[in-house]
Amino acid sequence: MPFTKRIDAAVIRSLRTAQAGAAPPKLAAALEHAVLPGGARIRPQICMSVAKACGDDQPQIADAAAAAIELIHCASLVHDDLPCFDDAGFRRGKPSVHVAYGEPLAVLAGDSLIILAFETLARQAHHDCQRTAQLILSLTQSTGMPNGICAGQAWESEPEVNLSAYHRAKTGALFVAASRMGAIAAGHDPEPWTELGARIGEAFQVADDLRDVLYDEETLGKPVGQDEIHTRPNAVSELGVRGAIRRLKDILGGAIASIPSCEGEAELAEVVRKTAERLTPVSVKRSGAAHAV
Amino acid sequence: MPFTKRIDAAVIRSLRTAQAGAAPPKLAAALEHAVLPGGARIRPQICMSVAKACGDDQPQIADAAAAAIELIHCASLVHDDLPCFDDAGFRRGKPSVHVAYGEPLAVLAGDSLIILAFETLARQAHHDCQRTAQLILSLTQSTGMPNGICAGQAWESEPEVNLSAYHRAKTGALFVAASRMGAIAAGHDPEPWTELGARIGEAFQVADDLRDVLYDEETLGKPVGQDEIHTRPNAVSELGVRGAIRRLKDILGGAIASIPSCEGEAELAEVVRKTAERLTPVSVKRSGAAHAV
Repeated sequence: MPFTKRIDAAVIRSLRTAQAGAAPPKLAAALEHAVLPGGARIRPQICMSVAKACGDDQPQIADAAAAAIELIHCASLVHDDLPCFDDAGFRRGKPSVHVAYGEPLAVLAGDSLIILAFETLARQAHHDCQRTAQLILSLTQSTGMPNGICAGQAWESEPEVNLSAYHRAKTGALFVAASRMGAIAAGHDPEPWTELGARIGEAFQVADDLRDVLYDEETLGKPVGQDEIHTRPNAVSELGVRGAIRRLKDILGGAIASIPSCEGEAELAEVVRKTAERLTPVSVKRSGAAHAV
Repeated sequence: MPFTKRIDAAVIRSLRTAQAGAAPPKLAAALEHAVLPGGARIRPQICMSVAKACGDDQPQIADAAAAAIELIHCASLVHDDLPCFDDAGFRRGKPSVHVAYGEPLAVLAGDSLIILAFETLARQAHHDCQRTAQLILSLTQSTGMPNGICAGQAWESEPEVNLSAYHRAKTGALFVAASRMGAIAAGHDPEPWTELGARIGEAFQVADDLRDVLYDEETLGKPVGQDEIHTRPNAVSELGVRGAIRRLKDILGGAIASIPSCEGEAELAEVVRKTAERLTPVSVKRSGAAHAV
C-alpha cells in the first residue's frame, strides 16, 4: 500500500508532541506501546486514499486526519482490552497496555490518545481553519455519543441490543469517518463518500467475524472465539461460513460501486480491492471460496 | 454567582446532543449521572468571568467554552473514581458512575464526555472558526499529554514524582484552560490570563488538601484522607494547617494582583474573592484563621 510511510510518519509526529518536555515517563512509554508498531492501519489508508482521489491539495491536513483516526482507533483498542471489557492479555502479538503498564496507565493512555487525536487536528487550523473544524466535528461524531464507537461499545452493556445501531456505531463509524475525513481534508463535500466508508466498515465486521471463528490465537495475535465468549452477534453464526463469505463479496462490490466519480476513482477502487484481499481470512482464500472478492 | 444558570443550560444542551437519536440508554443515563446535578462548577465560572471581563462579544462561544471545560472536569472525576485509581464509591453525595452503572460504562462515560467537550466547541466553528480552533487546541493542551490533567494523574504512577509538574498538570492545567479559554472566547489574547488560572489552580489544590485533612466524609460528599491513603503530596503535611492557610491567602492575593487591566477588572477580582471564600474550609473560616482571604 502506498501510504504506509506517510501514515507512520504522521502518527509518530503526533506521538512525539505528547511525549515532549516534562511528560511522565511511564505514560509516555505506554502511548508509544499503544501506537507502535502499528497494525494494518486500514482506516488511515482509506482516509488518505479518499483524500488522494479528491486531489489531496493540502497533504499536511490529510496527514493529520489520517493520524487522528489511527490515534482514536488505538485508544479504542487500549480501552477495549481492559479487564472490565475484553480482558485481553495481548494485542498485535505483544502484551496489551494494561498488562505492560497497569490499568491506571491504560485508562490514561486511552484518554490521552483521544485528546491527542483532536490536538493533532487543531494544530492544522493555521493551514485551513474551516477544514480543520469540519474534521474535528466529523471525528467527534464518529467517536462519541450517540452514534460513535463509544456508543457502539456501550450497546454491549444493554439487555436488548439495537443490532443495526450497534454495528453501525461499533465498527462502521470510524470507517465512515475515514472516508468522510479524507474528502474534507482535500476540500470536498463528505456526503457522497459516506457510503464507501459504511460499506467497508460492514465488510470489515464480517471479515472480523470470520477471523474470530476460523483463526487460532497465534495467527491472529489476539484472543479468538471472543464473540462466543461475550455472546456478541457474529455474521458466521447467523449466516454460516459460506453465507458470510458471500455477504463479504456483496458488500465490497457495493463499496466499489459507491465510489463517486472523481479523478482518482480507478486507483481508489484498486485500494478497496486490496483492502478486501487483506481482510479475507487466509483459509478462506485458500479454499477458493472468496475467489471473486 | 451570576453565571450558574448559563453554565447549567450550556452543559445540558451538550448533554442532550449526546443522548439524542438511537443512543444506547444506559450510557446516555450514565452521562447524565456524571454531569447533573453539578458540583461547584468553579472552572466554567472562571471561564465565563474572564470572558465577561474581556467583553463577552460572542456569548454562545463563551457558553461552549465553559461547558467544554466542565465536561472534561466531569470526565476526569468519572475516571479518577474507578477502582484502579481512587476506588471512590460516591461523588457529589451519590454513587459514583462505576458503582451506579458498572465499570465498562464508567470508562465509556469518561471517554464520551471528553469527546463531547470537543464536539461542543467544534459546533461553534460557524460563528467564529479561528476562536473555535484556538479553544480546542487550548483545551487539548490542558487535558492530554505532556502537560494536561492526564499527565498529572499519570505522575501518581511514577516512582519519582516531579512535584511541580505534577501539581501544575493535575490541578492547575484545567484552571489555566478556564482563564485562557475565557479570553479566547471573547477574542482576546490568552497569554496575560495564564497566571490568574495558574494561581487559582494552586489555591484550589491547597484548599483541597485542607479539606482532605479537616473534613469528614459526610460533609465532603466523597471519601476523605485520600492523600494519606494514596501517599500523595499534601500541602498540610508539608506546611501544617496554619502554614497551608497562609499559603492559600498568599496565592489568592497574587491571583487578584495578576488580573490584567480591563473593563471588568473589579468585578472579576470580586469573583476571585468569592471563589476563595468558597474554597476555604468552613472550620478554617470559623476559627478566623483565614479571615483576610
